[in-house]
Amino acid sequence: MEPRSGSGDARPAVTAVAAVLPAGGSGERLGGATPKQFCALQGRPLVSYTVQAMERIGWISDIIVVVSPENIETMKSVIEKYGHKRVMIVKGGVTRHRSIFNGLKVFAENEFSNHLLRKPEVVIIHDAVRPFVEEDILSKVVMAAKEHGAAGAICPLVSTVIASAADGCLDHSLERARYRASEMPQAFLFDIIYEAYQQCTDYDLDFGTECLHLALKYCKTNAKLVEGTADLWKVTYKRDLYAAESIIKDNLSQQVCVITDVKEAVGQVGFLLHKSLKSQIKVEAVSVSLSKNSHLQNIFSGQCYNFVCVNDKKYAIQETQQLVDTLEKSNIPLLYPVVLISVHLDIAENISFSVDMEELTRIKNFAREVKKKNILVYGLLIQYK
Amino acid sequence: MEPRSGSGDARPAVTAVAAVLPAGGSGERLGGATPKQFCALQGRPLVSYTVQAMERIGWISDIIVVVSPENIETMKSVIEKYGHKRVMIVKGGVTRHRSIFNGLKVFAENEFSNHLLRKPEVVIIHDAVRPFVEEDILSKVVMAAKEHGAAGAICPLVSTVIASAADGCLDHSLERARYRASEMPQAFLFDIIYEAYQQCTDYDLDFGTECLHLALKYCKTNAKLVEGTADLWKVTYKRDLYAAESIIKDNLSQQVCVITDVKEAVGQVGFLLHKSLKSQIKVEAVSVSLSKNSHLQNIFSGQCYNFVCVNDKKYAIQETQQLVDTLEKSNIPLLYPVVLISVHLDIAENISFSVDMEELTRIKNFAREVKKKNILVYGLLIQYK
Repeated sequence: MEPRSGSGDARPAVTAVAAVLPAGGSGERLGGATPKQFCALQGRPLVSYTVQAMERIGWISDIIVVVSPENIETMKSVIEKYGHKRVMIVKGGVTRHRSIFNGLKVFAENEFSNHLLRKPEVVIIHDAVRPFVEEDILSKVVMAAKEHGAAGAICPLVSTVIASAADGCLDHSLERARYRASEMPQAFLFDIIYEAYQQCTDYDLDFGTECLHLALKYCKTNAKLVEGTADLWKVTYKRDLYAAESIIKDNLSQQVCVITDVKEAVGQVGFLLHKSLKSQIKVEAVSVSLSKNSHLQNIFSGQCYNFVCVNDKKYAIQETQQLVDTLEKSNIPLLYPVVLISVHLDIAENISFSVDMEELTRIKNFAREVKKKNILVYGLLIQYK
Repeated sequence: MEPRSGSGDARPAVTAVAAVLPAGGSGERLGGATPKQFCALQGRPLVSYTVQAMERIGWISDIIVVVSPENIETMKSVIEKYGHKRVMIVKGGVTRHRSIFNGLKVFAENEFSNHLLRKPEVVIIHDAVRPFVEEDILSKVVMAAKEHGAAGAICPLVSTVIASAADGCLDHSLERARYRASEMPQAFLFDIIYEAYQQCTDYDLDFGTECLHLALKYCKTNAKLVEGTADLWKVTYKRDLYAAESIIKDNLSQQVCVITDVKEAVGQVGFLLHKSLKSQIKVEAVSVSLSKNSHLQNIFSGQCYNFVCVNDKKYAIQETQQLVDTLEKSNIPLLYPVVLISVHLDIAENISFSVDMEELTRIKNFAREVKKKNILVYGLLIQYK
């Protein structure tokens, strides 16, 4: 069985880590009315994907989402709808730095909540509009922050950077190889970044955007720069929403959940299937009795769209029905078809052909019914003696 | 009738303009085997969209596409398949600057072709992987180049740019407002950029990427910087291919071609339809007899996917059949459904109901047939007296 995430190896050797996600932007570059962090991708707001990316990492204790006052209710409903845990909403300020500062205050001042959250040793700052952040880079910046006080992900520059003169003509161009784009996530020893914000001038709070710069300017802390991957990019323009949606679709279609009930024969088939599939696609395998489906709820909130369900029950349709029910009860957006392959392993010694046909007809009818809900059910009956 | 493009207002007051498109990149950042400029979007290679964007502009006389030696045959087949005109292929060098230099040589030296092309006053340099370039920005950089000797499009920086110290820590960050990303298109007085390349050291030819820098360094020409739009972005990563494909689909779905034959009543309906649609979507309207379909071929090569065909012929199905034939003969990739609404205006005084039903049945059968080819035909019969 593959661990979901957040367990074991990648956990940084740090006592407590929290994350602050500034999500107060207006998204003016996007050219739409909805701020980009609330734009729906596959029916689900962008910010929810980013929160999910943080939340599935077990060693992040608190996730602070900072939104502008007019979006607090929207954010509350996102948290409720998608069942996000360990998330606290904080009211943003008028600029990015003021919002991040507000987010940090929940660990040190009583201004935004009645009870202070436990102060983390290291705090991650990550944009709400960078949904594809992976545990690996988060772990790297946290460990680098513990050592250096501050750390941030960087990427190569895509374009040459130039400076213009007062007359709107080229003054000089920068040698591309010597510079990097500063991306997110960044991480800081909490005391350093909080100190920096407390010292920070109004000018810097209003016109600056770069946290690494504040740590350097106010705390003499030269951040460690960590090479990031292309996944870290920020959803900025409308084209980025298109790209993000395609990536989400791609990820979903390349993920399959193999569900087996706990019986030995079935478990073995599930195990072999898992083994042979995993070189091709991302496989989640669970051995679970479908009636105890608490674990399945977690998978649906992780939005898997492909299921192979291996069982040896006499009436496979009941298991399938249960799975479909669970799917419907979850908040999985059904814009994209869900594929469910129900494999019925028949290990009975004597079974009449007519009974099988009856069973198959019932599955066919059931499949026709749920197809209307965009759930595609396929049945596979395997007899062996 | 809406002009296709390239006529009148936007033409810069310059005698001759040519374009050089470096398309020699290996696309290593994309992580795929196919260089990005040859990746298919809606079944058509990216470079073909960029060539098309240049080609539809009447005042660009020659389009030089510079490709690496192993891609010359591929590029030839692209030109043939999509019927590109005014395009010449030139063999690229081992670096971007060497490729651009080769492209410029076809106007000044006999190295790459038997006959020299007419030397342009201004040459545009534009990446093959920026397919959404518009006439407006091309015209602006050309006019600025005529005045200043060199000009280039710029965009705001999306990320803060930082410099790292030798130990991999932050040295300093640049104040984002003072810098810009240098994008394409750029334009130059031919004599200036050609002179710059002739003077250019091997080091600059091998390690530089920025043409504006060469004009400044070797010809003391400070390029005029022209604010570009977000459309100018360069397809760099896999996510950019996703975004480009979505934009292409979006553009296609927001474009409709209204075809009317030349009769007065029909022409008027087509005109009114055009008028009422054009506030919502991009409408191309042509008054043309369908049997003389040379103009239609141009539209198909422009890849319109939605057609409203208004006619008053007794047998509308023949017209529709012709249109479908023309569509099939064109190279339009049919991955995306073509929608064809055939509006039959019946202005005859006496017509029996049964004849209409027969006609409708025939259209229905015809529609069922062509649906297999991903062409969706809808018939609309309007009788008025």
